[in-house]
Amino acid sequence: MNKWYEKSGECSDVVLSTRIRFARNMSDYPFPCKLNSNVKSQVANDIKRVLSNKSFANYNFRCLNIASMNRIDTRSLVECHLVSPEFIKKDDSGVVFISSEDNISIMVNEEDHIRMQVMKEGLSLEETYNVADELDNKLDKNLKFAFNENLGYLTQCLTNLGTGMRASVMLHLPALKECGMIEKISSNLIKLGLTMRGLYGEGTEPKGDIYQISNQVTLGISEKTAIKNLNDITMQIINQERNYRKELSKNIQVTDAICRSLGILKTAKLLSNDEFMKLISNIRLGLSMGIIKGTSYDVLNNITIKAQPYMLMKEEKSELTSVKRDQKRAMIMNTNLQNTEIL
Amino acid sequence: MNKWYEKSGECSDVVLSTRIRFARNMSDYPFPCKLNSNVKSQVANDIKRVLSNKSFANYNFRCLNIASMNRIDTRSLVECHLVSPEFIKKDDSGVVFISSEDNISIMVNEEDHIRMQVMKEGLSLEETYNVADELDNKLDKNLKFAFNENLGYLTQCLTNLGTGMRASVMLHLPALKECGMIEKISSNLIKLGLTMRGLYGEGTEPKGDIYQISNQVTLGISEKTAIKNLNDITMQIINQERNYRKELSKNIQVTDAICRSLGILKTAKLLSNDEFMKLISNIRLGLSMGIIKGTSYDVLNNITIKAQPYMLMKEEKSELTSVKRDQKRAMIMNTNLQNTEIL
Repeated sequence: MNKWYEKSGECSDVVLSTRIRFARNMSDYPFPCKLNSNVKSQVANDIKRVLSNKSFANYNFRCLNIASMNRIDTRSLVECHLVSPEFIKKDDSGVVFISSEDNISIMVNEEDHIRMQVMKEGLSLEETYNVADELDNKLDKNLKFAFNENLGYLTQCLTNLGTGMRASVMLHLPALKECGMIEKISSNLIKLGLTMRGLYGEGTEPKGDIYQISNQVTLGISEKTAIKNLNDITMQIINQERNYRKELSKNIQVTDAICRSLGILKTAKLLSNDEFMKLISNIRLGLSMGIIKGTSYDVLNNITIKAQPYMLMKEEKSELTSVKRDQKRAMIMNTNLQNTEIL
Repeated sequence: MNKWYEKSGECSDVVLSTRIRFARNMSDYPFPCKLNSNVKSQVANDIKRVLSNKSFANYNFRCLNIASMNRIDTRSLVECHLVSPEFIKKDDSGVVFISSEDNISIMVNEEDHIRMQVMKEGLSLEETYNVADELDNKLDKNLKFAFNENLGYLTQCLTNLGTGMRASVMLHLPALKECGMIEKISSNLIKLGLTMRGLYGEGTEPKGDIYQISNQVTLGISEKTAIKNLNDITMQIINQERNYRKELSKNIQVTDAICRSLGILKTAKLLSNDEFMKLISNIRLGLSMGIIKGTSYDVLNNITIKAQPYMLMKEEKSELTSVKRDQKRAMIMNTNLQNTEIL
């Protein structure tokens, strides 16, 4: 089976992926920041025990203990969006359960006892929510989640209080970026209770014109309403992006940038990650504009994930110098885009 | 028949072309700077009459009157190195005779009454000199050249006095440039009575790592000795360049630059002249290193000449905006390098 990041889904010309995350805490324990290593281990063991029940067998969860993993393995998990960058920085008792298709991960003792997330290719908020909701219900039956009738789920950070849900979509917005629309959209989103971020979440810079949009409000709004809002607004942004792309397709400078990006990716022997992200953004744009043929969004999604520094090292099973990584990244592109052509 | 600049010759991995130029003046007239338009016309007519003799028939000279030509036609002559940039700036009585293969040109009323030059692809100083010498002898029989037993040929500028000969070779020196050797070579050449210049002669910047080396001394040295000196030193520089190329071929950054230059030339939809000169320099280097296959020096020479701004407009038979030129230049490269590949 392919991983979610090796596939493409709905509106894949603009949407890379959809993510639903629930923050949950067990009422028997204080929040993780108040726990010592021993108690954290207890929390992890409680959850592990539950997940070993037959009813979770279909997820095929594997259990990874961050403390016992090397740098390459932990950081490549971040690159696959399976754990947060903060999670692997902790030096004790971080445990994560990951499903066989890499579409579900359950971080234990991150900010909250449980951070479960479901990811899916393309725009798929409802379906992804249903998968997350089903998992949440199953866990809820076996673990006493801290819940208050008035407030909802209790979380360490107040920004998650209530539904504890963060729903997000990863969008490729090169045309809106090129036309200087991102800041305006970003400030409008805030007024609508949504927020726009970079590729790896809060505080990170957007790379390759990829932006993450997610709900900000978790209190006083149901999960389904929050998801409907996010979906409606995402559809608006998708349409805006598509319209600006139509405009840009008449621009010879843009066509030139797309075509030469393909030329470089097919021939370069060294590619830094930053340059790669810029070039692959152009290829994705060119594919949607009909300027480029002979590749597909699932291939582009796949090589975008694989081109990341720690993913490269994971495949090589060893640390690589910056130059060696740039070489390997270039080789992957030369091979994977061999039959990609300008229309 | 192909023009000289559509062919490649000896040592074509380093040498683009060889040029011999003689400055001559007629003893019956003062130097051109002392002449009014009428007398300049007389000079031109005298020469025209001589060149219409049967003995010049094999050259197939065509006579061009600069004043009656448009901007595109005169400037494309400069781009083909058939006339000097100064020559077309004069507003009266500039006449040039050009042979059918574009290998010989005779400028009338440039700095001297006659500036005859012979060009040839590759390194070919002796052969080119012989062609120039034969033409010079034929003209000398019919026109009284200003000559002094002690000084030799009299020229307006003292730097040409004596042989009136400027022999030059156009060299592609990307490896010596990359290794920071150009300044050292340039200052050594001065001590040897030679000089190093940019692509269009005195005072111009080198573009695409192309340098022109020529004899500086015209007094107290025979033509043949001057040519032998230039040839010997050119051979040394060629060998140095080749050795540095061997070193550079181990450098992944250089290989990367060569490969991606091909990628860009094959795909870009806009190419400025400056970018083109940089990229084609890399292709030429890559061809000599065995990194690139499926093209040849004559093709590269040809497209280098044709990619120049006025040559593009000449082919289009109209003025072109900068963007249109960049588009046309890119199209020529896409087509001509279609089957060029990385080895």
